[in-house]
Amino acid sequence: MKDLKDGPQSLTRGECLDLMGTAKVGRVVFTEQALPAVMPVGFVLDGGDVVVCVPPASGLAAATGGAIVAFEADDLGTTGPAGWTVTVVGRARAVRDPGDHARRALDAWISGPSPEFIRISSQRVTGRRVGPSPTGERHKAAA
Amino acid sequence: MKDLKDGPQSLTRGECLDLMGTAKVGRVVFTEQALPAVMPVGFVLDGGDVVVCVPPASGLAAATGGAIVAFEADDLGTTGPAGWTVTVVGRARAVRDPGDHARRALDAWISGPSPEFIRISSQRVTGRRVGPSPTGERHKAAA
Repeated sequence: MKDLKDGPQSLTRGECLDLMGTAKVGRVVFTEQALPAVMPVGFVLDGGDVVVCVPPASGLAAATGGAIVAFEADDLGTTGPAGWTVTVVGRARAVRDPGDHARRALDAWISGPSPEFIRISSQRVTGRRVGPSPTGERHKAAA
Repeated sequence: MKDLKDGPQSLTRGECLDLMGTAKVGRVVFTEQALPAVMPVGFVLDGGDVVVCVPPASGLAAATGGAIVAFEADDLGTTGPAGWTVTVVGRARAVRDPGDHARRALDAWISGPSPEFIRISSQRVTGRRVGPSPTGERHKAAA
């Protein structure tokens, strides 16, 4: 099957990580009780990994521990297609100590005395520009 | 397992749909080649269903046809946790004619002469406020 992220507006891995590094909020995508599930979280890039702060009492760390998850961040137009989206796919593991850099960057998201974090390896990084294709004219549908 | 969406900041189904109706962009969460996948799309609520405009040449309709998918929309703080997130889980089906209301609302997202849409039934609707719990003081982690 064609990869959904391929196309004329695809971004390189470097472009993807540069854009993702400008965002503060993303979404962990995983499987919960055999159903697709998604949770928005604060995050930071750290050495090529995505480090997210686990919402207190969410059970997110337990639900994703050791699993392959996706993590998506974007910056999109609010009324029409404009901007970018980047998705990282990799294995998630719960950590108590995310490293000094990540802890400082995630400070606003930390609740409670024993915060939990998830580190997601960036095994696969894909992204694309969202909006009219630079290689083709945008056609309006017939009214 | 505890439902990740339960908690003191959970929203009712009616609150979820009201909030989701204020957003224009959301994310379809599905499985692609046995891996979690996510794609941002324009959407509109229509009779309790979520109707999304399929990005041209994305293969999204084929990847999700007949499958149970999740669809998430949110409005979150850009620097810390503040706002809401709502997720609909239900069966996706590709449609050519989304209905007049949905077509008008999705006009900005329509590319090409034969646009495709996905209609997602709102079999399960969950959501929560994101931010400090109203029932407990927010504790800062020790520096």
